[in-house]
Formats: sequence, C-alpha cells, structure tokens
Amino acid sequence: MDISKRIQRLKVSPVRKLNPYAEDALKRGIKIYHLNIGQPDIETPKIFFEAISKYNGTTLRYEHSRGLALLIDRIQKYYEKLGIHYDVEDIVITSGGSEAISFAMLAIFDEGDEILVSEPLYANYKSFYDVFDIKYNAVRTYAEDGFHLPSREEIEKHITPKTKAFMLANPSNPTGVVYTKREMDDIAYIVKKYDLFLISDEVYREFVYGDRTAISFGTYKDIEENVVIIDSISKRFSACGARIGCLISKNKKLMTAVFRECQARLSLPTLDMLGAVALYELPDHYFDAALKEYDYRRKIIFEELNKMEGVVAREPEGAFYVLAKLPVKNAEDFIIWLLKDFNINGETVMFAPAEGFYATEGLGKDEVRISYALDSNDLKKAMNILREALIKYKEVEK
Amino acid sequence: MDISKRIQRLKVSPVRKLNPYAEDALKRGIKIYHLNIGQPDIETPKIFFEAISKYNGTTLRYEHSRGLALLIDRIQKYYEKLGIHYDVEDIVITSGGSEAISFAMLAIFDEGDEILVSEPLYANYKSFYDVFDIKYNAVRTYAEDGFHLPSREEIEKHITPKTKAFMLANPSNPTGVVYTKREMDDIAYIVKKYDLFLISDEVYREFVYGDRTAISFGTYKDIEENVVIIDSISKRFSACGARIGCLISKNKKLMTAVFRECQARLSLPTLDMLGAVALYELPDHYFDAALKEYDYRRKIIFEELNKMEGVVAREPEGAFYVLAKLPVKNAEDFIIWLLKDFNINGETVMFAPAEGFYATEGLGKDEVRISYALDSNDLKKAMNILREALIKYKEVEK
Repeated sequence: MDISKRIQRLKVSPVRKLNPYAEDALKRGIKIYHLNIGQPDIETPKIFFEAISKYNGTTLRYEHSRGLALLIDRIQKYYEKLGIHYDVEDIVITSGGSEAISFAMLAIFDEGDEILVSEPLYANYKSFYDVFDIKYNAVRTYAEDGFHLPSREEIEKHITPKTKAFMLANPSNPTGVVYTKREMDDIAYIVKKYDLFLISDEVYREFVYGDRTAISFGTYKDIEENVVIIDSISKRFSACGARIGCLISKNKKLMTAVFRECQARLSLPTLDMLGAVALYELPDHYFDAALKEYDYRRKIIFEELNKMEGVVAREPEGAFYVLAKLPVKNAEDFIIWLLKDFNINGETVMFAPAEGFYATEGLGKDEVRISYALDSNDLKKAMNILREALIKYKEVEK
Repeated sequence: MDISKRIQRLKVSPVRKLNPYAEDALKRGIKIYHLNIGQPDIETPKIFFEAISKYNGTTLRYEHSRGLALLIDRIQKYYEKLGIHYDVEDIVITSGGSEAISFAMLAIFDEGDEILVSEPLYANYKSFYDVFDIKYNAVRTYAEDGFHLPSREEIEKHITPKTKAFMLANPSNPTGVVYTKREMDDIAYIVKKYDLFLISDEVYREFVYGDRTAISFGTYKDIEENVVIIDSISKRFSACGARIGCLISKNKKLMTAVFRECQARLSLPTLDMLGAVALYELPDHYFDAALKEYDYRRKIIFEELNKMEGVVAREPEGAFYVLAKLPVKNAEDFIIWLLKDFNINGETVMFAPAEGFYATEGLGKDEVRISYALDSNDLKKAMNILREALIKYKEVEK
C-alpha cells in the first residue's frame, strides 16, 4: 500500500512549514508577530454575518453547482463597473480562489503539459502544478527590479511546444508587484502569438498603491477567449474564512468543462454565498479606509526595511506583501533562530522563507516574504525586532 | 488552445443530465416530483443556524487547514460511540464527502492505476476516476440479487497488479444495498490479502432499515491501515448545503499526504464548521424520527413498485434509493418522455437514468435510480404517475 507519486510531489507550504517552531515559542510564552501569513486583520463587514442570520430556509439544500444565482448576478454587476460584461455562463462560484485554480489546472493541462510562470510565485500554485503533474517553466524576476518582468523576448525564450498557458498574479503574492500597462501588453501579445491560455489571478485587484491601477486582463478584448480570471472575496472583503471565490472566462469550451467539475463536487456552502452577496452590495467607498490603512503600513515597512543595512526591498506596489532580500546566508535558518533563540522583551517576529516561492531549486535562500496585514503599531515593533535581530545574527552566522 | 483530455473524459452527471427537459416542463406549468436527486427534504436542525448566528468574531480568518479543532473533537466523540477511537491526526475536515473522495483519489492513485469497484456505483466517483485518470475495474451486481456482491472468488478475478484500492459505499448510493457481515468480511479478507486500500463511503451510515445495521469498516482492527472512511453531514443531518464532510484513516503516511492537500486549498468555511459542531451535539434519538419516516417511505416505494408489471426491485435496505429495472427498452428515453409528453393533471415524475451509474458501457439501460427523499404523500402520487406512465409507454415504445 504505497501512496501515490503525485501526492509525494506536494511540498509543505513555506507559509506554514515553520509553524512547529512557532508553536514551541508560544509554549515558552513568547509573543510572535506573524508577518508570515496573508491573513488580513481588517474586520469582515458586519453585513456578511447579518445576511447569513437572515436566512429563513428550513432545509439547507444543495445549491446549483454553478453557484447561487444571486451571487453570480452581483459579480456580474461588480465587473460591469470595471467595464467588463460577463454572461452567467462565463462565471462559476468556487471554494475560494484555490478551487478556481484547481479547476483551471484540470481543465487546461494534461499530465506533462507545461505552464509558463514568473518566479517567485505563489507557493500554492506549485502545489496544484505538482499534484496534477504540470511542468513549470519559470521566467526569473529579481528583488532589485521590484520583481517586474523581463523583456518580451526573454519571456518568449521559455515557451516550448508543450506550453499551454501563462499564469500570473496581479497584484502579486508574494512579491507585491503590480504589472505596468506595457508589461500587460507584452503578455497579451505573447498569449495571442502562441495561442496560450492566460490565467490571471486578480484576487488582490483593489490593493494597489500610489498612482497605480491594477488593470484586469478581462479588459483585453483581443484575447478574451484566452483569459481565465481567478477571483475571490477573501482579501477584497477580509473574508478568508468564507471560502468564496470564482473562475471567469469567455472561453465557452473551457467553461463547459469547468461546469462539469462543479457538478462533480455538487455545490458550495449556501450561507457563505448569501453572505458574499451582501459584501458585493457594499458601496464603492468601502475600500477607501482599508486601502488607506494598507498604504500607511506599506510605507512603514518600506521605510524601516530601507534603514536596515544589507536589506534589498523595492517599494511595494500592491497586495500586502514585500519580498525582501536579507543579509543572511539562509533565511529559513534565520527565521528558525528568530523563533528559537531570539526575542526582545519576550517578543519575536516570523516571516515566510522565500525559497518555497521559487520554482527553481536553490533560489531565494536569502529572501523572505513579509506580509503587512498587521496593525501598524505591531508592524513597527516587528520591524524593530527584525533590525536588532539582523545585527545580532551577524555574529551567530560567523 | 485546447482544453485537456482529462477534462473531456468527465461525463455529465446522470442525476442532472436531463435537467434541461425538466426546466422546459416547468415552463409549461408542469409539476415534477423529483425522485432523481438525493436531496433530503427533512429539515436541517435549527441548532445549526443558531450556532452560526452566535459567532462573535470580527474577522473571518482562515481556519486551520485540517479543520476546526472543535469539530474534529465532536467527530472523534461520534466515532467513540461506534466503538472506534480516532486520533486528531486521523481526521481531516473536507468540503462535503466530495472533497474527501477527491483527496483520497489523489493521495492513493497515480495516472493509470486501477480501482476495484462494484457496479452500479455512485456516478460522481466516476467523475473523479476519469479526471484523475484512474482505471476502474467493476464487479457487476444485479437488481435481481438486490445488488449484493458476488462471491469472494468472483471479486478476486477483477484484481490486477495495478489495483491499488477497493471502493464502495455502504449503505450504497445508488442501489440502497447494505452489505452483510459476511460480505464485509470477504472484502476485508481481500484488501488484506492483496494489500489494497479500502475506501469506504459511509455517509448514509444511519439510514439502515429493518433489523440491519451498517457496520463501519472502521471497526475492522485487522485492516485499520488499509481503511479510508469517507463521511459527511449532508445526509446524516439534512445539511447538504453546508458542504462539510471528512476523510478518516489510521494510515499515517496517507494522512500526512492528505494534510498537504488540505494545506494547498488553505481552509474550509468557518461558520459551516461551527454549525456542524452543533449538529454532532444532537442527542442520539435525533435519528429516530427521520429513520421512521424514511422507513415508511421505503415501504411505500417498495410495495408500489412491486405492484407494477415487469418492474424488478428488491426491498431497499439502506440510504434512500432504490435501483429498479423497468419494463422499457431505454430508461433515459422514458424519462424524457415523462418530462416532455406525459402528465396526469399537470403532474409528472423524474428519475435518474441508471446507465450513468454503471462502469461498463451499455449496462443499466432499462434501469432507473429512484430517490425517496420526498414526502410520503408526494411519493404515493409519484408512484401512481409511474404506474400509469408505464402502461401508456408500452404503446409509445411499440
């Protein structure tokens, strides 16, 4: 009785792999600032819970496999505001963005097919690629360039006859990059030229800072049959524990296939979908306060990191992450040391080692993903701990 | 841009494939008795909704990937009552039984590996086998035998060097069979002898009639490393729309792998898990009323079917299905005719064509799955419509 080879390819999440050290630290009474996890601390709008408590059905039945019709309607209206019209048949509700990714992978790729990605990339993408035996071909991006894409020609070099899709997150987890119009035009050109699907994870769409805007690939008319949008309410409305996302595409063949995947898993939680309906009815200015808060935190992080000797971090542009290069040989060892051997007045800090976000073995060893989904006072304390720790760790590493 | 071959193997669900005909009938003002779908009509206990409305958190965070600790505790206690002790590490909460099946498939089978099943089988199993490229080798069972298993020797003939697991539902959807102790002993003997996983779908555990009991394969100490239990609250507590299930096994290697699958999809809906906790706290006698009701319906169905000429249906033993052989050439055509061309005072009836529940092409063409998760008065009316329809259809088929 052996378990499958495909499941053995699944790696432990870099975000969670050091949890045992954190649990040990907690037991010793250490307070940890968790900058390792992308869990927004902003309150879930009360309207979500209110909508659920208004449910007056008696039997909680299987909902339609595509999702609650009312929720699909609200998502259509949301996209209309972005200038994109989607038909009901273009949308399926999914269990968070995760299920949308899983559905897209199964519907597009056979075993051994290739996906084009940029690295570093969201570690859970790799879980799905690995378990479904999708090979990934990664275009490298660098901390020094703020993780922006290389030239079109450089990207094209990574395309092979087996490449079926390009996938990216915009704004990006884990890098915080927001792609420019020029970069997006390049990608659109490439997917058109090579007849690829373009899987665009836009769950952080609203989290964009400065004078930037996150353009949706849904607005690219010329490639509308290529584009597959991954979306979710988790970050948008601070509702990670609702597990409501969606997959959107105007590619009819793809959506017919995806709908069969929906049928195989029957349906999604009715109550959470009702809650999500209410969230999509929030006024547009709902995002203003959250965005202002994240922008403030982003500035704290960026300023503090740039004061530290040997740290490389460009200005975060979107989402709530920054991928920083630290003056350490091995970031994972450093984080373990932070949890085991270091504290300031009983407090320490935790990051996600960036190695797990790379596709290529051996890259990112001196980098960490820092999430700033944390109260600004705590963030300041956490940055202070990091600065002191880096100074002390120099001696430890010698 | 082609979609994948694996997704093209996915068939439309036999339970839902005739829905367009039903929608048309509805538009024409026809009332349909839906005996095609396994949706209990029993009320979801109010305690489920009450527990959810008591939630007083402010941010709906990602729960632990394994599931809410409190829910795992309640599931442990539930199994203790069945005489089975499970550790926390033996259980993961899943999005309905469906996700548990999907997790088991990925963790056990590589592409091209074989699974041993009995046919007819639950159609959604096939969806997961097909999309993950698992070959199925089916032991045939017959309406005339009430779909009980053939001899051990007959089953063993279907085992090949590529067989990695035996999978069955007990009580069974779609056949309503409850396996006897002797049949279960045979299965246990086989999985031990050939070193197979035994995937036992026990979501209908409580729905057993007469003097039968549904024994859990979890009680078989000798094969505890082989056994993987699929479970769910959907039928047990009439909570299909909560999408809460679980996967249970004492096989540590398997559960380590399954836990990584949990991490890849992050977490499950917090509120539905809280509701499920409350359901598991219901007193044992909760099932008495539901069981009595289903038993009554089962008798109606069985008696009525046996009055109809040419219908073959043994006494349903468990779950809320009966798979009946009808005196028609093609049951799917018959159901379409029921929806398009037949009604009694504006009412008709819908079943699931059984062909989609068979693994072998061409079998089950004259069979239907009849679900009796419907009020007994409606059931009687539905049976009356079926009887009249069968008489009339004889002429149509000529």
